[in-house]
Amino acid sequence: MSSNKPSIPKGTRDFGPTEMAKRNHIISTIKTQFELFGFSEIQTPSMEHLNVLTGKYGDEGDQLIFKVLNSGDYLKKVDQSQGNLDSKRLLPDISEKGLRYDLTVPFARFVVQNQNNITFPFRRFQIQPVWRADRPQKGRYREFYQCDADIIGTNSIINEVELTQLIHNVFHELNYENFILKVNHRDILFSIAKYVGLESKEIQFATIIDKLDKVPQEKVHNELVELGAEESKLTDYFELTSSNDYADVEVLLTRLNKLLPENKGIKDLTIFFDLLTQVIEKPKVELDFSLARGLSYYTGMIFEVKAKDVNIGSICGGGRYDNLTGVFGLSNISGVGISFGLDRIMDVLEEKNLFPNLLGNEIDVVIGHFDQESLNHGVMVLNSLRLSGIKVFLYPDVVKIKKQMTYANKIAARHTLIIGSEEIAKKRYTLKNMETGDQKEMTISEIISVLKPTQL
Amino acid sequence: MSSNKPSIPKGTRDFGPTEMAKRNHIISTIKTQFELFGFSEIQTPSMEHLNVLTGKYGDEGDQLIFKVLNSGDYLKKVDQSQGNLDSKRLLPDISEKGLRYDLTVPFARFVVQNQNNITFPFRRFQIQPVWRADRPQKGRYREFYQCDADIIGTNSIINEVELTQLIHNVFHELNYENFILKVNHRDILFSIAKYVGLESKEIQFATIIDKLDKVPQEKVHNELVELGAEESKLTDYFELTSSNDYADVEVLLTRLNKLLPENKGIKDLTIFFDLLTQVIEKPKVELDFSLARGLSYYTGMIFEVKAKDVNIGSICGGGRYDNLTGVFGLSNISGVGISFGLDRIMDVLEEKNLFPNLLGNEIDVVIGHFDQESLNHGVMVLNSLRLSGIKVFLYPDVVKIKKQMTYANKIAARHTLIIGSEEIAKKRYTLKNMETGDQKEMTISEIISVLKPTQL
Repeated sequence: MSSNKPSIPKGTRDFGPTEMAKRNHIISTIKTQFELFGFSEIQTPSMEHLNVLTGKYGDEGDQLIFKVLNSGDYLKKVDQSQGNLDSKRLLPDISEKGLRYDLTVPFARFVVQNQNNITFPFRRFQIQPVWRADRPQKGRYREFYQCDADIIGTNSIINEVELTQLIHNVFHELNYENFILKVNHRDILFSIAKYVGLESKEIQFATIIDKLDKVPQEKVHNELVELGAEESKLTDYFELTSSNDYADVEVLLTRLNKLLPENKGIKDLTIFFDLLTQVIEKPKVELDFSLARGLSYYTGMIFEVKAKDVNIGSICGGGRYDNLTGVFGLSNISGVGISFGLDRIMDVLEEKNLFPNLLGNEIDVVIGHFDQESLNHGVMVLNSLRLSGIKVFLYPDVVKIKKQMTYANKIAARHTLIIGSEEIAKKRYTLKNMETGDQKEMTISEIISVLKPTQL
Repeated sequence: MSSNKPSIPKGTRDFGPTEMAKRNHIISTIKTQFELFGFSEIQTPSMEHLNVLTGKYGDEGDQLIFKVLNSGDYLKKVDQSQGNLDSKRLLPDISEKGLRYDLTVPFARFVVQNQNNITFPFRRFQIQPVWRADRPQKGRYREFYQCDADIIGTNSIINEVELTQLIHNVFHELNYENFILKVNHRDILFSIAKYVGLESKEIQFATIIDKLDKVPQEKVHNELVELGAEESKLTDYFELTSSNDYADVEVLLTRLNKLLPENKGIKDLTIFFDLLTQVIEKPKVELDFSLARGLSYYTGMIFEVKAKDVNIGSICGGGRYDNLTGVFGLSNISGVGISFGLDRIMDVLEEKNLFPNLLGNEIDVVIGHFDQESLNHGVMVLNSLRLSGIKVFLYPDVVKIKKQMTYANKIAARHTLIIGSEEIAKKRYTLKNMETGDQKEMTISEIISVLKPTQL
């Protein structure tokens, strides 16, 4: 046991009362919208069997899963007679569980495991932490919250429109309007890969394309040529992706249609934008043929929300997956979902100073006192106030009144109430408004009517 | 990737919408009371450094901590030249993090780490999961939620009274009154240990005594004699513990005072019961000199809440610790706290059928339709209803109306609203109450006024 100041693991954070008030503000805003849109909450365990998690996030993802050591004598079954042990080969023998890496794969597992109790289409939301052994940096933590909404068991593009509206509502309610929602379609990406001559290299194509918002187009171009792309056809594609006229979706889709006739992605997007304009007056949606999204399970439309005025990566993302539950033995269930990144949204609202003013100023009254007798009397006063829903507590120790008032001030209590022998005799107490400094002698019921005027 | 039906780790659970509604009901009830009592929320990381966790929960506790394998080539620094590896010796080399085992030790670590930003007395609450590699059984899970409230930086017994009232309020609000809150004091336990001749064996004494509610008194008696207790003095003690007259606290304390004069525990309990009777009319509190509580950090009063009519272990517990932060280098900070076990309370309310009726019946309206055109029109109707705070969604696919109604029924929607070409033309829609079967044609604003009468 060391007497050094203790610390927390790299990439994790403590949240004090002020941060929690802010986090709860975001979570409850998102949750209210999820519920308004008819999603039901579920939760899954923090630990999953490693065979549920691995192979779903690509090789890099598998590396980033936190593995939990088996309990007890974990080396018991390990054969050590064949010489030195190797981290990779030893792993399956000493660890069979990992921490949740996202909420989507556990959801797919949940759906398959509970398929007989689920009525499809199933609209679920889930707000829980996930863990990734990533290198910590701005906007990237090793423990962070995802807020997911998915609709599974339906092919209709209406769902994509619903989720788009949900995203608009959430950021509107959070008072953050300076975002852009980029959309694309995996069918388009894959067809373009074929078009430029990269058939069977679609995933590599998408991975390279995904860098377009970080590295110069020339570099991406060269990488693709190296991979085997035809230069002239690449030029056709880059003309489309570098268009600034994203607003004119019709033009873009028409031009793309000439390159890729009969593409399902173009059809889906046409329906999507038709419906969208009926629902949202000025959708903050941009068609971006270079949007790829890393996760390999997406098969249809994909989404990504960027903050336009904060440099922090995507703050919400998602897409359609036609066969996510297939790996667990349940085929032909199409779904679509989005995930809000609580921690990045927190960083954006913090940087833009968008939290409501009174957040975290939660204590209505601190009761102070002059001696042991007044302190004991305070226990009863406390009771009456709490019964009226007033958030109140009593300074618990007999100390100088000045110290008690300094305390009330430091914790940002809205009012103080002071008890002495005179107050006990008169049954009237001085209530002080800590913001204005006003104070007045009142009975308990007068105090209640001042603090909770609607309750009388 | 297997196509076998996937599963979740032993001792963990999925929570579907119905369970979540119930869990949220309990959590929000507890949280409301915590806030009413002036506690502020904090959260700490799921993973802590192992040197923060180990040595705080006894040897058995250390065994039950889930250890997280270091990322990457975790064997890299391990010297394998000295022959076979051993689980215990290898551990510090391959794992430096563990999953939170309770909320109290991380809280102590938080207080020490953030001592310069904390105003004492500090009232904090924390509602998060903890993990223990225990053998799963009824009421015992490997992942479960604790709901903790602690007051740190104050010696006053007022705090113990506050927490006792909080416990009464929480169970009252949960509509569960058939509980008993047992209290004792560590000073009394330790002095009794000395009294019966077990000086320096106080912890072993407490561990054996703790079994009194599970095994016959005779067995406990024999174990204590074996440990070195004097038989005649043991008899004095058992006369006190086996008294059924717990209600008469004064008599009990007076009798104990004869055995242990000048004991601080007796003084604390006297103050506690004096104050308590001023605050709660009929406190469900029982003085039980055999209550021990396993955790070694308690030094003052200890609490344990039992359900009287459900066999499930304690549903809430806590106590005072005078030096919890001492192990992290911050001495002389006394605190007291309690912890509600969400999962056991859940089991109790479930068994006693005490959840509110409408819980989980969350969807106000499902919109059905006859064809693609009505479906598209539904998107607009949806919008108007949601703007009025109505929880609604649209059946997303074009299928037979009967299938849509069966669906609405299965997910327990309160109403359905049906759209066809006639409805679109008249702008009047049939709203059906799924409980009564009543249905009526209405305009959107009429529908809103029926579903949200207070908003008009």
